[in-house]
Amino acid sequence: MPPPTTRLAVRLEQARAAVGHAGLDVLVVFGAANLAYLTGLRMSAGALALTRDRVFLVADGRYADAAATVAELPHTSVAALATGQSYEEGIVALAGSHGWETVGLEAAHVSVARMAAIRRAAGESPERRWVESEGVVEGLRVVKDPWEQGVLRDAGARLSAVAACILAKVSAGQTERQVAWTIEVALHAAGFERPAFETIVASGPLAARPHHRPTDRRLEKDELVLLDFGGVLDGYSVDLSRTIPLGTVDPASRRWLECVATAQDAAIEAAAPGRLPSAVDAAARRVLDGAGLGDHFVHGTGHGLGLEIHERPTIGPRGDAFGALQPGMAFTVEPGVYVPGRGGVRIEDDVLITATGAERLTFDS
Amino acid sequence: MPPPTTRLAVRLEQARAAVGHAGLDVLVVFGAANLAYLTGLRMSAGALALTRDRVFLVADGRYADAAATVAELPHTSVAALATGQSYEEGIVALAGSHGWETVGLEAAHVSVARMAAIRRAAGESPERRWVESEGVVEGLRVVKDPWEQGVLRDAGARLSAVAACILAKVSAGQTERQVAWTIEVALHAAGFERPAFETIVASGPLAARPHHRPTDRRLEKDELVLLDFGGVLDGYSVDLSRTIPLGTVDPASRRWLECVATAQDAAIEAAAPGRLPSAVDAAARRVLDGAGLGDHFVHGTGHGLGLEIHERPTIGPRGDAFGALQPGMAFTVEPGVYVPGRGGVRIEDDVLITATGAERLTFDS
Repeated sequence: MPPPTTRLAVRLEQARAAVGHAGLDVLVVFGAANLAYLTGLRMSAGALALTRDRVFLVADGRYADAAATVAELPHTSVAALATGQSYEEGIVALAGSHGWETVGLEAAHVSVARMAAIRRAAGESPERRWVESEGVVEGLRVVKDPWEQGVLRDAGARLSAVAACILAKVSAGQTERQVAWTIEVALHAAGFERPAFETIVASGPLAARPHHRPTDRRLEKDELVLLDFGGVLDGYSVDLSRTIPLGTVDPASRRWLECVATAQDAAIEAAAPGRLPSAVDAAARRVLDGAGLGDHFVHGTGHGLGLEIHERPTIGPRGDAFGALQPGMAFTVEPGVYVPGRGGVRIEDDVLITATGAERLTFDS
Repeated sequence: MPPPTTRLAVRLEQARAAVGHAGLDVLVVFGAANLAYLTGLRMSAGALALTRDRVFLVADGRYADAAATVAELPHTSVAALATGQSYEEGIVALAGSHGWETVGLEAAHVSVARMAAIRRAAGESPERRWVESEGVVEGLRVVKDPWEQGVLRDAGARLSAVAACILAKVSAGQTERQVAWTIEVALHAAGFERPAFETIVASGPLAARPHHRPTDRRLEKDELVLLDFGGVLDGYSVDLSRTIPLGTVDPASRRWLECVATAQDAAIEAAAPGRLPSAVDAAARRVLDGAGLGDHFVHGTGHGLGLEIHERPTIGPRGDAFGALQPGMAFTVEPGVYVPGRGGVRIEDDVLITATGAERLTFDS
């Protein structure tokens, strides 16, 4: 289901207000997730020009039919590209015809090459300034609205059910690839439109690679297997990791499992409105440091979830650039331990910040 | 299978030579497909610094284990990021320690925000210039080496077999989503690691949307259904579209099918070394223009295939920026006709430019 039209109208109104607060005449949105947030459309190319009181969707011929639905939103119209016209040229033409003076471009979503193409298309126009802008739409997206919270809750419950189903099916003798496919079939059966990212199945010593890709290695008895998978529901991603002992694992592995679980509990406990993301990260890190495993925890504790699988907030030592946690933020909590040549453990669940603490979106069932 | 080490060594040598030709002391490669091409690794983050005689892989802790395999390539070493160090800081530190003066950054793969972060990290350093560079690695990738040609041939044959299997299974009453899942299961069974993009199943009037996403609409008798799907094999994408009449379709639809097939034949016939991409596009466009359908052909005729699903060459009216077709180039040929509210047709196959013409990578079997 796409977001309801009434939701899109609210988001567009908030975004237009944010453009004014940013001191821009217009913000040109190129980021695919930002476009999806504001229009309900998922396009491989497109741009949205937001002024304080108008919205223009710039789209090429492939999206003419879909764009027509956007034109029904309040204060919104479609500026179709002419055949052969580039997006850069289309934006420059639109800016010229409306006489916009301060045009913001999303610095995180415009490449240096695209910026140069826009400047070439614009030529010398002393009355117009092209300025870099950051995080205007992301700043809205980081707090999930009630509709989004409902989608994430639904998705989290489905993903937890997939995990329960998969954990019962994994056994020694299967290859990593076979397990990955079993997970993807279960994600489909649970109603997810697609995996949120390439499913990770990392067995034995290969679990030391946090971003391992499944191989034809067969899972062996008495070793750990790390599973990390997610699904997309109504455009929103949820993400979960489990590390399973296949039989009896050695004492070191058992200790990693216990310490990572304790670290995750500590981080979830620390997650609450008003807390800094770095404090959540530190809670997990403190446990692993205390166990002498800190050097093996080689990534941040978590990442935001939403229309992107990695978005704000960043739950890490350097995650405080955008301030404290607020109700409506959703993110993963996924401490891990990775020992090259030996193996690894990661345990990951998703949480939603509430008025008083953190609600688990995924869980053991 | 990753590319053989001997192939990677050749690619790195060619890339280092290209850095010299571009007048750079060093090129910093950030593009994910470029990194995969040169290292065999597929990383969600990473950078490769190429000088005329050395290669440095900059990687964070998540890739420490995988990066070690790259360090075995000739003239190559790994520059691990310190915990909490950003890629921008890592690159600036590397440039400082080696005294590089002219540092190229990939303009197409560096956002305006990342460029600003690099400049902030670099501070005032009059002895060092950060310059925009375009297409150094893409210029190598556009001509597929013998190993890549073998992968694409294998992948094309598998995709053709998937198409044959699917065409026999599609029937009225199924939903678009069900058909999409049937395709994805067949892609898996054929050995593809994943779909190359979100499978398109567009039925009846919805086929007027070139980038339609599957819905719960049920396919109806006597209408067209457009299928567009692809798979990734050893990292390389192939892509195929078929439009099938489910029973007896109206005369207009039959005519669209015939004209698009004729346009595709004309374009493949026009594809040969020394020809310009725009000439291939024009060959398809001429057929559809002649049939009075030119206004309904709303996209280019094709796109390059390789480590990305859309890469060079672009087969369109504005596709000649990088010169004529050369043996070893691989791309789609996919003319289409889209009539809003009524329906659409697209027929797509992949070809490889040979010494004398174009070899079909996908076909009806």
